[in-house]
Amino acid sequence: MSGVIVTDPPKADPGDVDALAGHGVSTVHEAMGRTGLLPVNLRPIQQGTRIAGTAVTVLSRPGDNLMIHAAVEQCGEGDILVVTTTSPSTDGMFGELFGTALKRRGVRGLVINAGIRDTHELRALDFPAWSAAVSAQGTVKATGGSVNVPVSIGGQLIRPGDVILADDDGVVVVPRERARQAVEASEVRAAKEAASRAAFADGQLGLDRYGLRETLVRLGVTYRTYEQYTQDGAGA
Amino acid sequence: MSGVIVTDPPKADPGDVDALAGHGVSTVHEAMGRTGLLPVNLRPIQQGTRIAGTAVTVLSRPGDNLMIHAAVEQCGEGDILVVTTTSPSTDGMFGELFGTALKRRGVRGLVINAGIRDTHELRALDFPAWSAAVSAQGTVKATGGSVNVPVSIGGQLIRPGDVILADDDGVVVVPRERARQAVEASEVRAAKEAASRAAFADGQLGLDRYGLRETLVRLGVTYRTYEQYTQDGAGA
Amino acid sequence: MSGVIVTDPPKADPGDVDALAGHGVSTVHEAMGRTGLLPVNLRPIQQGTRIAGTAVTVLSRPGDNLMIHAAVEQCGEGDILVVTTTSPSTDGMFGELFGTALKRRGVRGLVINAGIRDTHELRALDFPAWSAAVSAQGTVKATGGSVNVPVSIGGQLIRPGDVILADDDGVVVVPRERARQAVEASEVRAAKEAASRAAFADGQLGLDRYGLRETLVRLGVTYRTYEQYTQDGAGA
Amino acid sequence: MSGVIVTDPPKADPGDVDALAGHGVSTVHEAMGRTGLLPVNLRPIQQGTRIAGTAVTVLSRPGDNLMIHAAVEQCGEGDILVVTTTSPSTDGMFGELFGTALKRRGVRGLVINAGIRDTHELRALDFPAWSAAVSAQGTVKATGGSVNVPVSIGGQLIRPGDVILADDDGVVVVPRERARQAVEASEVRAAKEAASRAAFADGQLGLDRYGLRETLVRLGVTYRTYEQYTQDGAGA
Amino acid sequence: MSGVIVTDPPKADPGDVDALAGHGVSTVHEAMGRTGLLPVNLRPIQQGTRIAGTAVTVLSRPGDNLMIHAAVEQCGEGDILVVTTTSPSTDGMFGELFGTALKRRGVRGLVINAGIRDTHELRALDFPAWSAAVSAQGTVKATGGSVNVPVSIGGQLIRPGDVILADDDGVVVVPRERARQAVEASEVRAAKEAASRAAFADGQLGLDRYGLRETLVRLGVTYRTYEQYTQDGAGA
Amino acid sequence: MSGVIVTDPPKADPGDVDALAGHGVSTVHEAMGRTGLLPVNLRPIQQGTRIAGTAVTVLSRPGDNLMIHAAVEQCGEGDILVVTTTSPSTDGMFGELFGTALKRRGVRGLVINAGIRDTHELRALDFPAWSAAVSAQGTVKATGGSVNVPVSIGGQLIRPGDVILADDDGVVVVPRERARQAVEASEVRAAKEAASRAAFADGQLGLDRYGLRETLVRLGVTYRTYEQYTQDGAGA
Repeated sequence: MSGVIVTDPPKADPGDVDALAGHGVSTVHEAMGRTGLLPVNLRPIQQGTRIAGTAVTVLSRPGDNLMIHAAVEQCGEGDILVVTTTSPSTDGMFGELFGTALKRRGVRGLVINAGIRDTHELRALDFPAWSAAVSAQGTVKATGGSVNVPVSIGGQLIRPGDVILADDDGVVVVPRERARQAVEASEVRAAKEAASRAAFADGQLGLDRYGLRETLVRLGVTYRTYEQYTQDGAGA
Repeated sequence: MSGVIVTDPPKADPGDVDALAGHGVSTVHEAMGRTGLLPVNLRPIQQGTRIAGTAVTVLSRPGDNLMIHAAVEQCGEGDILVVTTTSPSTDGMFGELFGTALKRRGVRGLVINAGIRDTHELRALDFPAWSAAVSAQGTVKATGGSVNVPVSIGGQLIRPGDVILADDDGVVVVPRERARQAVEASEVRAAKEAASRAAFADGQLGLDRYGLRETLVRLGVTYRTYEQYTQDGAGA
Repeated sequence: MSGVIVTDPPKADPGDVDALAGHGVSTVHEAMGRTGLLPVNLRPIQQGTRIAGTAVTVLSRPGDNLMIHAAVEQCGEGDILVVTTTSPSTDGMFGELFGTALKRRGVRGLVINAGIRDTHELRALDFPAWSAAVSAQGTVKATGGSVNVPVSIGGQLIRPGDVILADDDGVVVVPRERARQAVEASEVRAAKEAASRAAFADGQLGLDRYGLRETLVRLGVTYRTYEQYTQDGAGA
Repeated sequence: MSGVIVTDPPKADPGDVDALAGHGVSTVHEAMGRTGLLPVNLRPIQQGTRIAGTAVTVLSRPGDNLMIHAAVEQCGEGDILVVTTTSPSTDGMFGELFGTALKRRGVRGLVINAGIRDTHELRALDFPAWSAAVSAQGTVKATGGSVNVPVSIGGQLIRPGDVILADDDGVVVVPRERARQAVEASEVRAAKEAASRAAFADGQLGLDRYGLRETLVRLGVTYRTYEQYTQDGAGA
Repeated sequence: MSGVIVTDPPKADPGDVDALAGHGVSTVHEAMGRTGLLPVNLRPIQQGTRIAGTAVTVLSRPGDNLMIHAAVEQCGEGDILVVTTTSPSTDGMFGELFGTALKRRGVRGLVINAGIRDTHELRALDFPAWSAAVSAQGTVKATGGSVNVPVSIGGQLIRPGDVILADDDGVVVVPRERARQAVEASEVRAAKEAASRAAFADGQLGLDRYGLRETLVRLGVTYRTYEQYTQDGAGA
Repeated sequence: MSGVIVTDPPKADPGDVDALAGHGVSTVHEAMGRTGLLPVNLRPIQQGTRIAGTAVTVLSRPGDNLMIHAAVEQCGEGDILVVTTTSPSTDGMFGELFGTALKRRGVRGLVINAGIRDTHELRALDFPAWSAAVSAQGTVKATGGSVNVPVSIGGQLIRPGDVILADDDGVVVVPRERARQAVEASEVRAAKEAASRAAFADGQLGLDRYGLRETLVRLGVTYRTYEQYTQDGAGA
């Protein structure tokens, strides 16, 4: 695996990226037809932070952070670094020094499908991160890899320049060509959610609002009093 | 699996429920003879909150939240919604809109053996939740299930109306008929713990307080100085 | 397994222990040649706390905390209790009462390769802990075990008197004979990190600072523009 | 947990039990409305064996097999021993000696939600077993538990006398009162499967046999040639 | 997720596919620059079988096998069915009836990133399969999905028509355009392995054959007798 | 981690090693006071094989098999190669070529706390192996490590020359100085097991043979008929 560093990938429109930052991960994931969600083992090291940016991708061997050094040079204002490994690893490939370098370059955060360390310092630095593990395990700089090639994490393809959106719920990727469409669909979805929220706060039931009573009937779900149910012989 | 919605299950006495909220999960679990603890993968999305309430149960297929809509109508003041699936799933079946609807109805919180989303918004809403995963993954409303039937999570049977108690340590269930007994046993246990806490703060040893020196002797546990131990040939 | 309680193990020099507390787990682990890190499943129950102390070790059967009672008597000022079990267990072997007793004796914290409970109370008590699980599951006092014998957790040997250092990143062990060396190496490492931090904050690249451009060339990693890369037939 | 040993539980009709043994776990699970399946981590230690029998249940503390000894006395012709623990454990609670004793009593096999050992010897003995782990870890006989009380494994309630059916696919439980119904429903299901098998072997498509083409249309699933699909902008 | 069924994807050359079947998964993975390996949780349900074929891909919701029915129609001679879900699931989406239908159409096997059932019958049918789980859990036919779209499993992109090679070691994917190159590289690799095998059987050391003694020296690895090593203070 | 290769470690007596091979892993583990068992995730790639030998240990970085090459030279007649990594890894560090080289040197098998590949070929070669994973993932030869230093796997310390015993139940380590003692204790244990086996085959109960009825009484375990039990209010 000698690897390649791709230098000038296309990127999603910055205005669209910032517009997506106005919506939560769940909203955008739903608005995009329930696509793009990265796996649930990617958890934030902080609470209450939401970021959106354009992906700079890294594919490394496990336990080797050489290619993150190469990637820093490819990172700029508005980017989010996305790192994965060729086989599963929890080693702490990323820490405070990388955070310092990336923050200087205007990078908005990190998504790493491996381990992270210096979590206390990264929180103090206000450099947000989502990782598969927290581990102080040191790494080497001995093998090649790639920067800004398409990578795949848990069933999702992430290409350089795609939009990454991350918050307390996790991480979602939006293909760069669909960023505008995602903004518009998210606004529609958010408006719908706001209306539902108001209705629910007012006491309306989802059964009525979404017409689900018919669905229950069609599926054969029946209502029974507890007394009927225990007489059916199924109570406890 | 067509399913059934049971409408008026018996519930534990509200006074007993509130009395149990005065004790921690560990205390009540111990007081009940070390029974009722739900599995450790159910973790709170907030810190420092303790709730007690009566269970409204939901059994759904994985990735389908139709029956949660049906359950909302069955929920009222003092209840806790308890959701599980017919096979393991991390999908985000529950979010802010459900939280809004349930809070309006006086529901005290959620225990879900699956995924939850909108965690930031649920914390802002002050609607406490314990879940097996955090995931933005959207779900459908396409298959039947049941409400207020007995469900089993990780070796514990939970029937509608049973008491659910949850805090930073996890979740415990108390059968509705045993709520009063649990209150009384918890008070006894809490008093005993308070006395031990004072004794330990004062320097007494558990070895002496609980008469464990004899137990060590009976089990053949011996004391050796480090020098003796290394001469035994087992040191390092 | 009758077991043994070893009473006066050698300990690392207190001055060295306190000096190590001035460095993070990642720094000390790196300074020691990337050794001593305990597995990543040991997570803190609090955030933002770092402790260093000398190990008092406990080897118990799963679900039995008798030997922790025996260990309390062996604990004193500056110690950290380190508990593991003969087979994996998540049971809550340690809670507030033990925390109270240990705090009274000047013990600095707990590392337990099993479950912990009363986490809310332990945080309130300011008794820091790192554990493999949070669980209210009660335990018995029915079987023997050992105190202050060498134990092994996830590939790391921990002997009584060894230095334990723990923070938000995890837990590292330093052999008692190497404490001084670890202090010195950590100071060197910290100074190096400080210089790198300043350089990175100033915009220098790791590629240049660490001479990694040559490494990339040697490993055959090449630079391609996005246009070249897609013409190579590998884009997406 | 002092525990109780229940001595004469009702049992499913032996004829029904043997009739169920004529069907696979998948068939019976489907025939019962997709209920009763035990979790997928229960795996057979042998291949190609199917057994059905009536449950004798054991609830033990982790790492303690005292109650299995008590259960042996309660086991007889046509039974299957079902063991679970109060918290997760992989310890080897069951081995060849138990297998020898149970085989002598006409017991048909073991389902254990914990560890098993002497797997080579048990295969030689032709005593089939399904377990959550294989482990030689020895256990003690120091704490109480219960025999022939209802137990719950991974969401399924198992009462003494219920039917246990196990094969290469896993383990399913059928409530003792529903054994006859399960036999009849399984026969219907098996006949339906046989017809489908013949049709599929003959080249018919499930799309046609089950009328699923309409379902696809209703759900909005469309057909596209590869050329159309790539022109849609979604190919790779 | 309404979904799309793509009807005539390009496929790798059948001759190349059959040539790849002459090599093991490890050899082809190495020959392709250590790429294409699917995750280790995909395990065969049989032993000693190797297959190669062209992928027909399925993306389904968890617990729903409707799209597998749609995919059967798209499958033909020399194909391998590759199934994954939009979120993790162990449900038994595939069984004997599907195996019968696919075998009739000349399909060579199944790779499913979910559960499989009827494993005994599938082995009897000689229809090989690799799955993430064995589970009898039944599924529904209620939600849409896609056939012959690119899917991603554990970091690997699989497009319709790509070559799938599977044996006891696992599963590897080769992009359809690189099938010829993979054949040639695998032949080179296999020849090299044969020569090394002969040399090793003859007593040569890898240290000498691959010139690794110099690597050890360069990396600072030193030789010490046991006596020297214990005098270094590091023995045990 | 530059590493060291230790060249002439002390070894357990060959006669004792071969005598231990006459007993199963469970028997020896019990005979040694329930110590020495390696974790349950180490599973055999074959069935029905038992081996005993003296450990040659390897500590490598994840994904790097350079040090296995160095270890081959240190291996000889009667040895078993024991490999672990500095952080968890499933990469396929060991395959058929290593098996060929080791078999030539009289090595009896492999225990690897990481991945293995060429499992079909290794079975054909009759080279037994126990591993934490099966994976074709290729590895590099780029970083140092150590041979014949003490390593720790899942709580067990393994030193070069210690006895490794492995069978279908797993792997146990016996310290080289205790090999003789282990043989003698295992013979005692095996005789005891043989007597119990005969007694159990003859219908005796463990309750009587081991005097456990008194234990049950002491622990407060009571006998209830099913009718009494349901009247107690606890039946189902």
